[in-house]
Amino acid sequence: MSIILYSLCAADRRRHYSPHVWKIIMALKHKELQAEVRPVSFAEIAGIEDGSYKSVPVLNDNGHIEGDSFEIAVHLERAYPDRPSLFGGPGGQAMARFVESFSQTVIHPPVSAIAAMDMHALMSPADQAYFRAAREKRFGKTLEEASATRHIELAALPEKFAPLRSVLAKQPWLGGAQPLFADYILFGVLQWARITVPYPLLPADDPVSTWFERCLDLHGAIGRSVVLSD
Amino acid sequence: MSIILYSLCAADRRRHYSPHVWKIIMALKHKELQAEVRPVSFAEIAGIEDGSYKSVPVLNDNGHIEGDSFEIAVHLERAYPDRPSLFGGPGGQAMARFVESFSQTVIHPPVSAIAAMDMHALMSPADQAYFRAAREKRFGKTLEEASATRHIELAALPEKFAPLRSVLAKQPWLGGAQPLFADYILFGVLQWARITVPYPLLPADDPVSTWFERCLDLHGAIGRSVVLSD
Repeated sequence: MSIILYSLCAADRRRHYSPHVWKIIMALKHKELQAEVRPVSFAEIAGIEDGSYKSVPVLNDNGHIEGDSFEIAVHLERAYPDRPSLFGGPGGQAMARFVESFSQTVIHPPVSAIAAMDMHALMSPADQAYFRAAREKRFGKTLEEASATRHIELAALPEKFAPLRSVLAKQPWLGGAQPLFADYILFGVLQWARITVPYPLLPADDPVSTWFERCLDLHGAIGRSVVLSD
Repeated sequence: MSIILYSLCAADRRRHYSPHVWKIIMALKHKELQAEVRPVSFAEIAGIEDGSYKSVPVLNDNGHIEGDSFEIAVHLERAYPDRPSLFGGPGGQAMARFVESFSQTVIHPPVSAIAAMDMHALMSPADQAYFRAAREKRFGKTLEEASATRHIELAALPEKFAPLRSVLAKQPWLGGAQPLFADYILFGVLQWARITVPYPLLPADDPVSTWFERCLDLHGAIGRSVVLSD
């Protein structure tokens, strides 16, 4: 019995910062599963398992391999039905896709712009070159140019969390009375920012911030275990 | 056995346009329940049941009365557990709150600005006076001033549906393989616009538009039964 989670890391290989990997670190703990977390650089992703993966997370669960964070969560739910549920039923699984889509289309792009230069600073020289080339190809501008608007993105960010803030006025977690995978989806993106950006993205008294702090306390405070800075 | 749904209507009392009432019209059909829909004007809301309600929908289910659309859906799920589920389990119920919050914080405000003058035109003179006074108090400007930016809101609207559009690339409904109450929440806001605004809010080939057309076809095409224009 062994579970291996491949996780993108900074030059300090104890510093795992991928939002999508953090979803799975939380999901494994939620399912009360032990896993070996193997740090990889961008260059090392091509060497994971059969070499067919282009991004992390990749999970090898006793020979069953999945390479997409949502599909990993679906696999864990199916493979470990007697452990605490990640979705709370089929409706919750379907609607977790909406939370994922919200995170990817509304929250991820501004956080990506805000964090880009700070992420770059944490990387090994080889990963810096890879990251710069990939980002500059995607956006058609230099990393520095793409980051020039980060103060504008930062100012606009709290309003973008309005749907989460509004839910948290009615219930403690996106999952209702207990956290579910949907919580870990949005936790992942704020954890990514927490690890890479040296200032807070939201005011401390924002209900989203207090929910995030409660997420950090979950599962033996695994979210607080990451190395933040020297 | 009788179920009464109180529904806001235009001067033409066959024209029900409240987004929140439409959620419940669809939810009742989903639960295969017959209901009498009673049209009310703004002024008549104060006369519903015991007179304590300030908005619609209000549902009287054989003496059990609820006055909030989400609470009505929760009641129907609890009271009719053997009928098709509206939430697909506890996780789906919790996450439908996120869909509701997204609808209320992201989609509802621009649609409200876009539709205000057209809604006003459909109302009885008494409701027009009520609506104008309530809106002008809330926004601190005349209805005409608040509506002056509607072309800007309209241009920005498609992008705001990005999370729904992204989910629909992965599954046919927010509820997954079948529609759930979460679908009816966002259906409600677009149905409100369809009934009140004389032009489409989204391009016909937008996946959100084709999903909405499929919603209109559900439950004997009840969504298409409303009187649109003379």
